[in-house]
Amino acid sequence: MHFTSETSSNGVIERNFILDEITGVLWSPASGTVGAPLLLSGHSGGMHKKAPVVASALHCVTTYGFTVAAIDAPGHGDRPRNLQDQRWAEAIHRARAAVEPIAPIVIDYNMSLAERAVPEWQATLDALQALPEIGVDASIGYGGVNLGVVTGLMLTSVESRIAAVGFGGVYVHDALLEAARKITVPLEYRIPWDEDEIDHSSAVALFDAFASREKTLHAHPGRHNQVPEYERDSSAWFFARHLGRAADTASN
Amino acid sequence: MHFTSETSSNGVIERNFILDEITGVLWSPASGTVGAPLLLSGHSGGMHKKAPVVASALHCVTTYGFTVAAIDAPGHGDRPRNLQDQRWAEAIHRARAAVEPIAPIVIDYNMSLAERAVPEWQATLDALQALPEIGVDASIGYGGVNLGVVTGLMLTSVESRIAAVGFGGVYVHDALLEAARKITVPLEYRIPWDEDEIDHSSAVALFDAFASREKTLHAHPGRHNQVPEYERDSSAWFFARHLGRAADTASN
Repeated sequence: MHFTSETSSNGVIERNFILDEITGVLWSPASGTVGAPLLLSGHSGGMHKKAPVVASALHCVTTYGFTVAAIDAPGHGDRPRNLQDQRWAEAIHRARAAVEPIAPIVIDYNMSLAERAVPEWQATLDALQALPEIGVDASIGYGGVNLGVVTGLMLTSVESRIAAVGFGGVYVHDALLEAARKITVPLEYRIPWDEDEIDHSSAVALFDAFASREKTLHAHPGRHNQVPEYERDSSAWFFARHLGRAADTASN
Repeated sequence: MHFTSETSSNGVIERNFILDEITGVLWSPASGTVGAPLLLSGHSGGMHKKAPVVASALHCVTTYGFTVAAIDAPGHGDRPRNLQDQRWAEAIHRARAAVEPIAPIVIDYNMSLAERAVPEWQATLDALQALPEIGVDASIGYGGVNLGVVTGLMLTSVESRIAAVGFGGVYVHDALLEAARKITVPLEYRIPWDEDEIDHSSAVALFDAFASREKTLHAHPGRHNQVPEYERDSSAWFFARHLGRAADTASN
């Protein structure tokens, strides 16, 4: 893991990094990271490591003292896109322009991206745990929406280091249900209730599939990119409760 | 409205009151109530004005400076039960003992109780607003579970003074759906996901029926009497956001 830049603003240190082909970013509190939980943040399809997760990430860093890491999905952000991914992206654009359903294309594309992203997240986690300011004792959570959910589901179903997951809206299909049945860690799952192509019953079916004993579903008005501020706060607080910073700070 | 007792403990003043046949309780912060929102609390069937809402009510008083009012449902708590209610209560006990469904009995019983409770809540609200420490400018919310939801739905569908509602688990039936369609104020609806006789799809159908633009559904593990502490906190915060105390205090 190689840091390529470091900036500091409003009490948050932002460091860009490169790990083999992976481009990522690490946010940490300027006040120090001793015992800080580590939150992994999975961006949505078509976005990149810093958008639109930045606001949430900064909130976790400044309010709860978390360290937050995000990486670009394959072919996203600072990473070159291969020909197959380019075709998928173009098919999505064409379907959108024709006002046709994009879900079938997105599902295939996201599954392909997630399969490639899982080993990348695992390598990133190894590298992060090797940093003295993080170490192997930091409790680890994963949050994401959309593509970030698909990746997080696949990752968490095979990765025992992740202790809590917070997911947003996602197109539900069988492979996700299957992965959810393997997940037993605490879950907060936010469903955007007015999302085109996400029907309520399939979203609830995904919630039901999780094997987690502690799981909470939040349905909120709007689409996946219209998450109300109180849900963002609730998500940070969820991670604080489960990753160990709730008791230390103003936890409501 | 006639106060029959006043005690003070841990910064909360508790006053029992009587209004005609209604027995109730008012909790308020010892530090004063200027501009304090008023939260009406509807208890569940078989319970009374102080249980199990006390913990929630005290949390709202101490954390957000609310005034909280609760009244006994007809035939509950300190109020005599009439013969018809006695028969319903016995039918529920018999069904429970025989491990038969209680929902059909509870639905009829609760609807009858709620029809009687609505004018009682309105009279209580008139009397509370006539108190100098509350007044007509206090913003008003209503929270309840179970019977408290049925009463709150019927009340809010005809009562424009209520500005936000927080509901818990309830047996869903047509009259509730019909009342929900008339409700437009912000809503937080908590579904106990492991409740006998509350199926998920009917609970979600009730959520869908609300005409509120801002509405949030929370599904949590356990039964209606097993609401996690973080949901109780979330509920208080919901009211604080909508009734005007979120900005003044630790609103996280």
